[in-house]
Amino acid sequence: MLAENSYGKLGIRLVKILRRQDRHELRDVTVSVALEGEFTEAHVAGDNRAVLPTDTMKNTVYSLAKEHFEADIESFGLFLSAHFLEHNPRVARARVELVEHPWERIVVDGKPHPHAFSRPGGERRVARVARTREGAAVQAGLENLTVAKSTSSSFSGFLRDRYTTLKDADDRILATAVKAFWKYAAPSGDFDRAHRGIRQTLLEAFAGHQSASVQHTLYAMGESVLEKHREVVEIRLSLPNKHHLLVDLSPFGQENRNEVFVATEEPYGLIEATVRRD
Amino acid sequence: MLAENSYGKLGIRLVKILRRQDRHELRDVTVSVALEGEFTEAHVAGDNRAVLPTDTMKNTVYSLAKEHFEADIESFGLFLSAHFLEHNPRVARARVELVEHPWERIVVDGKPHPHAFSRPGGERRVARVARTREGAAVQAGLENLTVAKSTSSSFSGFLRDRYTTLKDADDRILATAVKAFWKYAAPSGDFDRAHRGIRQTLLEAFAGHQSASVQHTLYAMGESVLEKHREVVEIRLSLPNKHHLLVDLSPFGQENRNEVFVATEEPYGLIEATVRRD
Amino acid sequence: MLAENSYGKLGIRLVKILRRQDRHELRDVTVSVALEGEFTEAHVAGDNRAVLPTDTMKNTVYSLAKEHFEADIESFGLFLSAHFLEHNPRVARARVELVEHPWERIVVDGKPHPHAFSRPGGERRVARVARTREGAAVQAGLENLTVAKSTSSSFSGFLRDRYTTLKDADDRILATAVKAFWKYAAPSGDFDRAHRGIRQTLLEAFAGHQSASVQHTLYAMGESVLEKHREVVEIRLSLPNKHHLLVDLSPFGQENRNEVFVATEEPYGLIEATVRRD
Amino acid sequence: MLAENSYGKLGIRLVKILRRQDRHELRDVTVSVALEGEFTEAHVAGDNRAVLPTDTMKNTVYSLAKEHFEADIESFGLFLSAHFLEHNPRVARARVELVEHPWERIVVDGKPHPHAFSRPGGERRVARVARTREGAAVQAGLENLTVAKSTSSSFSGFLRDRYTTLKDADDRILATAVKAFWKYAAPSGDFDRAHRGIRQTLLEAFAGHQSASVQHTLYAMGESVLEKHREVVEIRLSLPNKHHLLVDLSPFGQENRNEVFVATEEPYGLIEATVRRD
Repeated sequence: MLAENSYGKLGIRLVKILRRQDRHELRDVTVSVALEGEFTEAHVAGDNRAVLPTDTMKNTVYSLAKEHFEADIESFGLFLSAHFLEHNPRVARARVELVEHPWERIVVDGKPHPHAFSRPGGERRVARVARTREGAAVQAGLENLTVAKSTSSSFSGFLRDRYTTLKDADDRILATAVKAFWKYAAPSGDFDRAHRGIRQTLLEAFAGHQSASVQHTLYAMGESVLEKHREVVEIRLSLPNKHHLLVDLSPFGQENRNEVFVATEEPYGLIEATVRRD
Repeated sequence: MLAENSYGKLGIRLVKILRRQDRHELRDVTVSVALEGEFTEAHVAGDNRAVLPTDTMKNTVYSLAKEHFEADIESFGLFLSAHFLEHNPRVARARVELVEHPWERIVVDGKPHPHAFSRPGGERRVARVARTREGAAVQAGLENLTVAKSTSSSFSGFLRDRYTTLKDADDRILATAVKAFWKYAAPSGDFDRAHRGIRQTLLEAFAGHQSASVQHTLYAMGESVLEKHREVVEIRLSLPNKHHLLVDLSPFGQENRNEVFVATEEPYGLIEATVRRD
Repeated sequence: MLAENSYGKLGIRLVKILRRQDRHELRDVTVSVALEGEFTEAHVAGDNRAVLPTDTMKNTVYSLAKEHFEADIESFGLFLSAHFLEHNPRVARARVELVEHPWERIVVDGKPHPHAFSRPGGERRVARVARTREGAAVQAGLENLTVAKSTSSSFSGFLRDRYTTLKDADDRILATAVKAFWKYAAPSGDFDRAHRGIRQTLLEAFAGHQSASVQHTLYAMGESVLEKHREVVEIRLSLPNKHHLLVDLSPFGQENRNEVFVATEEPYGLIEATVRRD
Repeated sequence: MLAENSYGKLGIRLVKILRRQDRHELRDVTVSVALEGEFTEAHVAGDNRAVLPTDTMKNTVYSLAKEHFEADIESFGLFLSAHFLEHNPRVARARVELVEHPWERIVVDGKPHPHAFSRPGGERRVARVARTREGAAVQAGLENLTVAKSTSSSFSGFLRDRYTTLKDADDRILATAVKAFWKYAAPSGDFDRAHRGIRQTLLEAFAGHQSASVQHTLYAMGESVLEKHREVVEIRLSLPNKHHLLVDLSPFGQENRNEVFVATEEPYGLIEATVRRD
């Protein structure tokens, strides 16, 4: 009667300072660990003998971070997931998610400071590693990359039914908070460089596209990533349509030539699709 | 190259007043709609002819709410999903989620007021309907039902490794915010009554259980629902372990006999499992 | 050059279990402490000799909670503020805020359970104590008491200028999240009973009022508290107008007789006033 | 019996595109308006004849933004506050707050794009204008400028009492989310340039300071602003101490040389002070 189950620790807040000789580096991540396997007695009989406490998972993350979190979050995720599988025979699958909160160096007198940082705050970089006895799969991605374009976006010629009141828009604001996750062909490589490149490709595709809809731009972004980054086998994009409504200024004797908008939170469109290499 | 895709409207905030002769009823829901189907031209070519705007989905929800949202959220979800499938030949699957924010009547002079209400705020009732040309599936559930017990909970005898520092606890606070979703055998019935009954079963199982772990209590809760509610074929429970840490008062010459705790947000355990009828 | 200054600890999450013989009580509060006084050297010269660490404030809250948090939050706030003044000669003013997150007993077989609780989640009870060498002032209050009435509320006959497009409404939804703080004539008394009574008075005044505006209802609520509760010398009410917009269903051939509304978050009106005894 | 009162509209979300010949500019602000004056009949008698609806305030913001929001938020706030005072004889004081959500241009091929933008997300720029019949006062500021330094910060030699368990730290992480508001001597000037300069001064003072405490760094930041920016007469700084706790790795046979930390949210210190020109 016990079907799919997992347990783990979420929200493990880890900050690591890499104390280089001439400068510090600051890594700020939120780690989550989840284990799946044969845990029937724990559920049915309250027998904890096979249960590694989630508190131990947390300790493990901090302890292993000391020696093994020197490079990118993907590599640390691969290491962590291998550790949990290796030391827990009951575990069939270990999932590790790392959400990185990026910091930048404060610039003083035109130069990046060696140990003072600021955090922009919105965008997050994410790595997800899932590992079984057969091997590991790596998903990399980003969340909350908020972008907008003030022209080169339209939405017209759509299906109409008796509930349709929306008018064609041949020039509108297109705004979204990009959530993108992609799979690498192999669980290795220069993850930092790949991430930087894919992020820039997403931004350029968004900026340069003549958009007929969010779907249209989503696909162009995904296609562009697959074209320029051979290491990616598929990418999933999730684009909320953060509607900017043109304010009707005619009651006040004014014409609104696409200048004044209301930014709205709710309701919002959500367009999601996976673009996969043939 | 276009793989799985869907689009829809989220965050449609709908309040309906049912103006009965002697009293009003207040329904407060957030509706989300997502459609899946054959939308390749929209993505690849920017051809919107088959795309029903998400703005129209929103209008449809409000318009159909006028006549057809008289009873529970499950029934309205079934109606909405049928509407979208029926009027959109391209659509293979329509998903509707309704999150209800419950209101209670204000009590004046010991009597429930006919048109004044208060909203407790935490817990939400949820219905999820997924419909294809073959039929509809209904998931009902609740989120953020925050509960705690101040005794009858332990966690001991667990697996230890070199990273384990947690001590056995034979009497601890167990606190969680229950998220539960269950599937009904049939997409019909008295959904309000079923929901009320299952919710009470979950509460009683939580309160009455001698807990050896969150897993143990989770299973007891799921088992109890399956035993008492024949209409349920499976239930998925997701229980964050909202840790309450015993404060070490010994530096101040005091003994803390399970009286003073720190409530923490992060990190937190997360225990998830599905309990399914054999 | 150093003007007004204060420092303290916020977000001290304290849960206390009162282990009565036949049942437990659960107190769940977030405590904040702020101290003001002569701290110039700390700011100007980095001299910490007079600075009690905020970590110590936190420890003090937990340690004193063990013995002295037996009754209401106002009394504990009075005790805490007295402690900080007494032990810190430099401190001229100590402010303590306690936000209580109320829990209710789970009902099993029609009876309140002795040690299992649920937390509704929205409303918070608040006490604010400010103490100087001259004495203490107590403010009590509540936040996020979300209420609505589906009729007996209008807004019409208002001032119009060239930017006014709002139409008179003779029957509308009035919804708000009450924030109310009142001052007691004396810093003593049965704070629990007073709070319970004032809360009920606010609810009854809201429910029973024939409202011509939020201002009108706010004043009626304040006036009612002053009339019925002699121990209160003034009350400050802050009422956001949580707008519910009537949906225009006429494009779909429907008439909306005050039945279908959009609940909005932004923008919102905010009406604030203090009602004071003459 | 009616004492202090005000009413207004909050959360007016305004996006304006300035459509220059060769590029667009994007302004994204949340505007709040509050009016104070003689509104006794509205409260006591429900007489709305003197009440300008908050909906009209919202309309006014959008309409005036069309012609008069060309430059900085301070100037638009001054214009708005003057409008409300001029057209509402009952109003004694108009307060306008503008919170700007900054956007940056997306860089494509090394060049800033003319109409595509990204939004970092964390920091906000704020202007607060308060105007009476006597004149206007301008406060400018910023919120949520999150910064950290991984060394050059200590906290030691502090006051100890029986509740003190904190140890001296001669090298720690100092992290905060700066909230700063300053008053200009005159309600005019190049507000954009002043804001940019003061922000950079705050960053440089934070980065370059040898910190003995948050108080110490706060004062150094405020002093530096007053020294370098003659147009500022006082600055109020509010610095949460976002504690980073050193993880005890000794149970795992490791030494933690200020490398691995837990970032915590609660509890947190809060240090606030005003630094004023003599």
